[in-house]
Amino acid sequence: MPKRVDHEERRRLIAAAVRRIAADRGLEGVSLGEVAAEAGISKGLVQHYFASKDEMLRYATGTLREQVDRRVGTDLPEGLSGLRMLLLALLPRDAASRTDALVGNAFFVRALKDPVIAERFRTGHEQLRHGVAAMISTAQQAGELNADCDPVTEADLLIAVVTGLIDAILLGHRTIEEAERLIDHQLARLAAQ
Amino acid sequence: MPKRVDHEERRRLIAAAVRRIAADRGLEGVSLGEVAAEAGISKGLVQHYFASKDEMLRYATGTLREQVDRRVGTDLPEGLSGLRMLLLALLPRDAASRTDALVGNAFFVRALKDPVIAERFRTGHEQLRHGVAAMISTAQQAGELNADCDPVTEADLLIAVVTGLIDAILLGHRTIEEAERLIDHQLARLAAQ
Repeated sequence: MPKRVDHEERRRLIAAAVRRIAADRGLEGVSLGEVAAEAGISKGLVQHYFASKDEMLRYATGTLREQVDRRVGTDLPEGLSGLRMLLLALLPRDAASRTDALVGNAFFVRALKDPVIAERFRTGHEQLRHGVAAMISTAQQAGELNADCDPVTEADLLIAVVTGLIDAILLGHRTIEEAERLIDHQLARLAAQ
Repeated sequence: MPKRVDHEERRRLIAAAVRRIAADRGLEGVSLGEVAAEAGISKGLVQHYFASKDEMLRYATGTLREQVDRRVGTDLPEGLSGLRMLLLALLPRDAASRTDALVGNAFFVRALKDPVIAERFRTGHEQLRHGVAAMISTAQQAGELNADCDPVTEADLLIAVVTGLIDAILLGHRTIEEAERLIDHQLARLAAQ
């Protein structure tokens, strides 16, 4: 009987190699030869699973989304403590989250050109926006956050702050502790008096 | 008499071509052939001015800094109105500022590896941080902003907000008007009561 091959597993292995290369040296580093070497398989096998670089990159952004979801988690506590946990979990604090952030950055220019990747970015952003706004609403109802705040406006500001801080941490302009302090400072502003 | 060649002008011409390519398709697109074609000169001439891709990229980040400085201006009014003008001027609102933002993004991964580019990013960030904090202090002294705010903390938050909004605008997640409204909302929070 021939050996059973898990094709989805192979695709994930290749996508993981694409992500490591993208995080390390940007999409410039992503070539058939480099991906094959990084994944430890032949070029022919990479081509068997992905007909083009575009296809490979699109698949790799799909798995990124899943990885971020897995890291941030889906069973956060309700209200302010859950909101804080979510925002802090987005910061690059270890090797895995650092790679996620770098991959997102490496794919940025590509997202402006490739409609499939743009749609993934857009969906991810909308989900985060609605999630953060919903958590603010819940915290308002629980009397933890000021009822006068507009949840969507504050969600947009908090997400912009976190996005900016991710860049600042990666570049070494801010430490993770400074970023946490800044997020807490912004959250404290929204607190019920 | 042989024609006089302005070498600095040639370098700037090449750097402008590098920036256009980087904004359009990322650093993946920056090759000797592409740069020569974009600049409308021979590959040999590009090589005459830049011995390596690294050298060319470093020079191109230098000119980026100058372009941003020129756009934002150095003779902003003092206090809150100058602070607001500076922050809004950083947003990608036209072709030139959009290219600047995209180039900054394209060079991001490179900045993590290349100490010369990393230093340029660090210096640019420190200058912006000190400039924004100084403008907050001045606005506090003028009674426009709340004297209880810490200028450096608020500068870090405002810069993070603007950085995050630049990404959101480029990706089409937020409009320029929404971004302006969010910056004004954050500034209104710091206003003297």
